[in-house]
Amino acid sequence: MTILKSLEALHDLLNEEMTAVEKLIVDRMKSNYAPRIPEITSHLITAGGKKLRPLLCLSSAKLFGYKGNDHIKLAATVEFIHTATLLHDDVVDESNRRRGRETANILWDNKSSILVGDFLFSRSFQLMVETRSLDILKILATTAAEIAEGEVLQLTETNNLNLTYENYMKIIHGKTAVLFAAACETGAILAEADRDQIAAMKNYGNFLGISFQLVDDYLDYTGSSKKMGKNIGDDFHNGKITHPLIKTLEQCSNDEKLFFKRTITQQIQTQTDLQKALNIMSKYNSLESTKNSAIFWAKKAKDSLKILPANEVRQALINLADYTVSRTL
Amino acid sequence: MTILKSLEALHDLLNEEMTAVEKLIVDRMKSNYAPRIPEITSHLITAGGKKLRPLLCLSSAKLFGYKGNDHIKLAATVEFIHTATLLHDDVVDESNRRRGRETANILWDNKSSILVGDFLFSRSFQLMVETRSLDILKILATTAAEIAEGEVLQLTETNNLNLTYENYMKIIHGKTAVLFAAACETGAILAEADRDQIAAMKNYGNFLGISFQLVDDYLDYTGSSKKMGKNIGDDFHNGKITHPLIKTLEQCSNDEKLFFKRTITQQIQTQTDLQKALNIMSKYNSLESTKNSAIFWAKKAKDSLKILPANEVRQALINLADYTVSRTL
Repeated sequence: MTILKSLEALHDLLNEEMTAVEKLIVDRMKSNYAPRIPEITSHLITAGGKKLRPLLCLSSAKLFGYKGNDHIKLAATVEFIHTATLLHDDVVDESNRRRGRETANILWDNKSSILVGDFLFSRSFQLMVETRSLDILKILATTAAEIAEGEVLQLTETNNLNLTYENYMKIIHGKTAVLFAAACETGAILAEADRDQIAAMKNYGNFLGISFQLVDDYLDYTGSSKKMGKNIGDDFHNGKITHPLIKTLEQCSNDEKLFFKRTITQQIQTQTDLQKALNIMSKYNSLESTKNSAIFWAKKAKDSLKILPANEVRQALINLADYTVSRTL
Repeated sequence: MTILKSLEALHDLLNEEMTAVEKLIVDRMKSNYAPRIPEITSHLITAGGKKLRPLLCLSSAKLFGYKGNDHIKLAATVEFIHTATLLHDDVVDESNRRRGRETANILWDNKSSILVGDFLFSRSFQLMVETRSLDILKILATTAAEIAEGEVLQLTETNNLNLTYENYMKIIHGKTAVLFAAACETGAILAEADRDQIAAMKNYGNFLGISFQLVDDYLDYTGSSKKMGKNIGDDFHNGKITHPLIKTLEQCSNDEKLFFKRTITQQIQTQTDLQKALNIMSKYNSLESTKNSAIFWAKKAKDSLKILPANEVRQALINLADYTVSRTL
């Protein structure tokens, strides 16, 4: 099996469960009296996306031989939380493309995206309450708060060239890692895995999430718009400081710093500035450094799995970590 | 005791508990790494507001002799949910004044209001999970979803002169009544009231909320900007159809309908149009009808309390229903 097929393999392994998750999502995005809710939600959900978070949740439960049905609810919960954050993010970032389509804030309006996002957040809480596990509820409620905290931090640190590596890590924790970790951890809790196993799955999700976001930040500078389904150079254009830029700022000359001060802090950009930024980054191997960092965290993710039962699900999760990094190829 | 003092009396009766709630709110609006969260939250919360929802929750628990501490958490939960919806509402409505101050979306920006609102929603879920009651969690998660549904319905029905009375009632259910009802119901559940008593408190909250929103809709046309702490005529200017307008549209002439078509549907308004709308409404006694409807629902709220223990808390809740309506005086 090639690395690139590993995501597909994971979908195959969990085919039956994923069908049930998708059915549940369609069922629960209905509204008794606000038809715009399923309209917008299905626009986003049927546009695809990798559905990584529900896959992680289902994998984690399956790895420990879970026999019940609540993992379907949990998987739908994490996808609803994720979808809600996407709707709000696209308003905050004024994005116009996501998953190869126009965003809901463009097709409908910001107001609808805000309110439908709120609805999906609430629906996710309704779904998780149905699992009747206070441990799981505590983790997911805390996760939702940490996602929002990370988003607020990202907003207040936009345009700030002095963003520390530490704060960058907090931002990507909230943006991606914490929900990956929660999906894995709660799946294991549901399956009554032991304490060390639950911790191992949480670590796997966390490290995988960090790696995944580093790759996203790498691709934002280097990817193809068609492959990504969204615009390239968004982080640069929006003045978001990510790993490649942090690495560049650590090493660049005063003149180069002035270039970033104009383009990122003051947000004065010309059409050739993205290419100029890429040239400077290339000089300091910053994108290479981001890629290496993604590989480092993917390795840590895989290492976390060592203490777990060596079954086909564990292998699929190892392959998934390789897939994450392979997106940079 | 005059009617107008009844809100104050309720605050006095629950003084100790409300102090604890306010302390908890300040404590839980903190963020480890996103200082904008407490900045914005305290801007809204220290600006006052009647804190009706926590008062309802605490009253309900006290009415049945609750002896624990979880009612403090529950009261903070409902206030956080309310504050989150205010932040998002002000973005959606493009409001610039609330509680006599500039709104957060003006003082900071829409982005901060959206994300801090998300944080407060999540914090409210963390707090409610701490009560460890699955019944309460189910009610509050459902309440949050119904609030969002009502908001989406309100948004899609804006400018629609054919808004039905039924849909108007659904909108005010989501906007106000469902959270009032949940605050009362969950307080009673915490205090282990019996089934009929819990239902009575839920009804009280629901009817009180309907009455309260009718009064708000009345005051939006007739109130003083200073007393309300927000702009007057917002509903008219924003093309929101509320009770006084529904009553007018049921009776008005074709020419008058054309006036509303221009001002509400097409949103073409001149400076004198609000006064003209008021003149038409006055012709059909529509504002009087809204006031009478508010009195009707306040009476239903009071009647719901009849089966409950006749103590000072029950009396305070009766007075509160009178206070609600007295705001129209």
